Amino acid sequence: MHRTHTCGQLRIENVNEKVTLAGWVQRVRNKGGLIWVDLRDRYGVTQLIFEEGSTQAELLEKAASLGREYVVKATGTVIERTSKNDKIPTGHIEIKVDQLEILNAAKVPPFIIEDETDGGDDLRMKYRYLDLRRGVVREKLQLRHRMMQETRKYMDAQDFIEVETPVLIKSTPEGARDFVVPSRVNPGEFYALPQSPQTFKQLLMVSGFDRYFQIVKCFRDEDLRADRQPEFTQIDCEMSFVDQEDILSTFEGLVRHLFKNVKGIELEEVQRMTFADAMKYYGNDKPDLRFDMKFAELNDLAQNKGFAIFDHAEIVLGICAKGAGEYTRKQLDELTNWVKRPQIGAKGLVYVKCNADGSFKSSVDKFYGQEDLKAWADLMGAEPGDLLLVLSGEEKATRKQMSELRLKMGEELGLRDRNVFKPLWVVDFPLLEWDEETERFHAMHHPFTSPKKEDIPLLETDPGSVRANAYDLVINGVEIGGGSIRIHDRPTQQLMFKHLGFSDEEAQKQFGFLMEAFEYGAPPHGGIAFGFDRFCAIFGGSDSIRDYIAFPKNNSGRDVMIDSPSTVSEDQLKELSIRVELKD
Amino acid sequence: MHRTHTCGQLRIENVNEKVTLAGWVQRVRNKGGLIWVDLRDRYGVTQLIFEEGSTQAELLEKAASLGREYVVKATGTVIERTSKNDKIPTGHIEIKVDQLEILNAAKVPPFIIEDETDGGDDLRMKYRYLDLRRGVVREKLQLRHRMMQETRKYMDAQDFIEVETPVLIKSTPEGARDFVVPSRVNPGEFYALPQSPQTFKQLLMVSGFDRYFQIVKCFRDEDLRADRQPEFTQIDCEMSFVDQEDILSTFEGLVRHLFKNVKGIELEEVQRMTFADAMKYYGNDKPDLRFDMKFAELNDLAQNKGFAIFDHAEIVLGICAKGAGEYTRKQLDELTNWVKRPQIGAKGLVYVKCNADGSFKSSVDKFYGQEDLKAWADLMGAEPGDLLLVLSGEEKATRKQMSELRLKMGEELGLRDRNVFKPLWVVDFPLLEWDEETERFHAMHHPFTSPKKEDIPLLETDPGSVRANAYDLVINGVEIGGGSIRIHDRPTQQLMFKHLGFSDEEAQKQFGFLMEAFEYGAPPHGGIAFGFDRFCAIFGGSDSIRDYIAFPKNNSGRDVMIDSPSTVSEDQLKELSIRVELKD
Repeated sequence: MHRTHTCGQLRIENVNEKVTLAGWVQRVRNKGGLIWVDLRDRYGVTQLIFEEGSTQAELLEKAASLGREYVVKATGTVIERTSKNDKIPTGHIEIKVDQLEILNAAKVPPFIIEDETDGGDDLRMKYRYLDLRRGVVREKLQLRHRMMQETRKYMDAQDFIEVETPVLIKSTPEGARDFVVPSRVNPGEFYALPQSPQTFKQLLMVSGFDRYFQIVKCFRDEDLRADRQPEFTQIDCEMSFVDQEDILSTFEGLVRHLFKNVKGIELEEVQRMTFADAMKYYGNDKPDLRFDMKFAELNDLAQNKGFAIFDHAEIVLGICAKGAGEYTRKQLDELTNWVKRPQIGAKGLVYVKCNADGSFKSSVDKFYGQEDLKAWADLMGAEPGDLLLVLSGEEKATRKQMSELRLKMGEELGLRDRNVFKPLWVVDFPLLEWDEETERFHAMHHPFTSPKKEDIPLLETDPGSVRANAYDLVINGVEIGGGSIRIHDRPTQQLMFKHLGFSDEEAQKQFGFLMEAFEYGAPPHGGIAFGFDRFCAIFGGSDSIRDYIAFPKNNSGRDVMIDSPSTVSEDQLKELSIRVELKD
Repeated sequence: MHRTHTCGQLRIENVNEKVTLAGWVQRVRNKGGLIWVDLRDRYGVTQLIFEEGSTQAELLEKAASLGREYVVKATGTVIERTSKNDKIPTGHIEIKVDQLEILNAAKVPPFIIEDETDGGDDLRMKYRYLDLRRGVVREKLQLRHRMMQETRKYMDAQDFIEVETPVLIKSTPEGARDFVVPSRVNPGEFYALPQSPQTFKQLLMVSGFDRYFQIVKCFRDEDLRADRQPEFTQIDCEMSFVDQEDILSTFEGLVRHLFKNVKGIELEEVQRMTFADAMKYYGNDKPDLRFDMKFAELNDLAQNKGFAIFDHAEIVLGICAKGAGEYTRKQLDELTNWVKRPQIGAKGLVYVKCNADGSFKSSVDKFYGQEDLKAWADLMGAEPGDLLLVLSGEEKATRKQMSELRLKMGEELGLRDRNVFKPLWVVDFPLLEWDEETERFHAMHHPFTSPKKEDIPLLETDPGSVRANAYDLVINGVEIGGGSIRIHDRPTQQLMFKHLGFSDEEAQKQFGFLMEAFEYGAPPHGGIAFGFDRFCAIFGGSDSIRDYIAFPKNNSGRDVMIDSPSTVSEDQLKELSIRVELKD
């Protein structure tokens, strides 16, 4: 037996017990004939004590020789501490050690293994197994474990069956780039790794599974960003005989369950907003609702007053930043420079300060009188002490710029508290979106999403205006999940492929098995998938999904710890009937 | 809302309620002005009724038009049945329908969708989504779901953290063949799909995670057999600061939990047996303990009596088949032919019948008197009415043949009941096994398994006799799981690689990151992995793991439903810097 207790377990009640602990040396202090060792494991830290005189000389020497991160086993008696530490649960006791075994020595770690570390990103990635020793990092993965457990508990209680779908599937040209896997047994042929189990979960509905879920790895060979990984995890769900309302309420239930059981938060009801309203009021299909600051359209009030920039603009948009009326000239200049950066791309920024005395001071006083500015302020519900910020220009671009400015103001005013959670369903997404590059419509969600019945005639006349039975779950401005009610009959699915520019032949080759399945009695069905890595990050109050992945890859898709990907032998490639052919 | 209840929900208490059901048409009967429709979903079957006179003519006509597997929605009133069916929970009621909507018509399915089907294997694989509609098939996947849920419940309660390890890892030459994935971003380099998360779980121990588990997909590009799939699922586990005893008791706990909570069976204590004993008494490292029939070594009793075949044999082995003394001449001839088949390879079979009167009748009466045969019978604990079967020859081969014969006799005598479960820990496996082909030692478990301390000196003198801290869980003759206490220090790991024929350079290139990790404070650790597909099959009383996989591949690694693997475009390959090069 290596231990009788963990390092987080002993309390004052255990005084006088003989115990054995094992763990890592966090710290050794040596003072006035006393040696203290902080022994750490996943469960906590317990103090060991060695005392000149009462401790054997040989044992004292061994204790003094311990280095950081040594793995040791210590046997001794629990005693009450003279100076107690109320910050840790084991802080009232310590172990008077009479046996000490070094289970494994340790080299000096390349960075400090504490919550605050001196290790840079690259070093910590290379020694990820040491980075994972830090409490703050391990806690993130413990949160992830809790999220998984609670998700499964809820889904099981709701009669969902977890079914594992295959990882070696078939490559399809739709969507993002596939990772492929050469087949040795079928030379010249390839499997693909799934971007999602979409078609399989739909087939499970055709099979009558009624309610399916899976927490599952998915893969996309896309160019990486900080918050994207080539492999990522989804909570993937599908239900039969449901309409959108059933799905929203079932998964609102999941979200509430997780907040309650993982974070102890009773969520208020999840708001709903149409895609159209989200774009109109927040310029964004994933608005952060931790603060209001809705867009106001000022065209009627601000145009034709002689200010050419507004007069020539397609739209004039304002937001009211509550309590920012005291912004200095310098702060306003900084804001102006910020919106003019190429990443934002605005031409300029108009401001109106709502003074305490009820008067207004603006950057366009030349063109607008106090009455004009009061009308703006009234429209936006502004009060003395507030700041109005106004952008203008081409509608789509201006909404986007204003969305960024709104988020920045929310940040500056401290309205984006990581401990406040505002979930939102965005509904009625467009079915199709125009792709400038390929000059054709793409499915906004995916090709299996059903159009709203009443909008189907518009497919022929105005495809861009057709709404889908599609919805996203957004929390604090981050898209956490999305789904749709699916097409479940062959004619509609064929029509959809036609509008997406598939020939009948292509559609048949890629998705023939699904359309055929629809002919054997497919129930109405729909579902949703949650980006689990991001969901965990939101729960943990972090922007980076990488922190919530045990062994993440860097921005070049490399695992620098194990040094992967790597070359493989010629023999191995030969067996797979492939050859490497590098470009120049 | 598509339904108010499922097809398994309504009871006599619901009579007079207005309900809406949705599901698949299982059967339509039309007799004497009455139409009955059995409506099926995952939860059960409910009878719908339409009656000439009281049902609208149009509705009657619609009901009569329903075909098998149509998806319909029916609204009506729950009424008490006149002739009740006690075999199904809904058998006391039926629905008098007043609204019927065909949600989706269905073509005639290619095979009968009932527990007994007329569909062959290939057809059912192609239309797997229809095969999954059959109750007996769906129940297997529901069992699998239950197994997953209960595994996670137990592991969580035991403080194990589920951590997802990467799917895109690094190819290693050890073990089975890897599937590889070309990297687009790192041209000429490849990821590999994991054969197991072995090194990652060991690194998690180095990280101080203390207790890890994962239910995880693994991949092996091996030639397939009926019970092997290129992708399969493991329950993968690892613990720190433990010895073998801790692991056996923790996972005996898991097995007991599963039997109790999934099958309602209170298991007796799990037996233990050394590898040496398993080979000695059962000729097999995974003995089926549902029946005894141990091997007896007859050399002392049977040699030097003038029977040349036995005299020249390295070993003479007997088993006692209880109650088989009445076997006919024909049955014994059949058994003899059976052991002589090339798959078994015995030269012949000697039998001894233990007659009711205490006398013996054998196929070797010429050489052995009644006293001799009585001595054999006594050694084997045989009683009147039993049958002794004896094989002889080279030891290793004879044990193997006898193991097969023992299993066959167990089968013939009905001793291998699928509803009886006899789990067993086989312990003290050899560390190394000699590979005739490559003429070197291979790791019997894997290169990270620790040798027994007391056997380490033998590594230099007699490597084949070194025992490992390795163990397998066997149930009913099937290996369900296996694991070991790992090496956790660099010198021992290096020594191990040396004995496996790795150069220092190769070892460093492949596993340098692990050996380096061992230098930063690695705790003693060990673990186990269960073959989850097989575990489910055993629970379900089946030999085939394929039945327990939602979308399995066939023996050529093909998914015939989606037609994968398949060719991919030249552009796609070019982007990946690879080219197909078929052999002639």
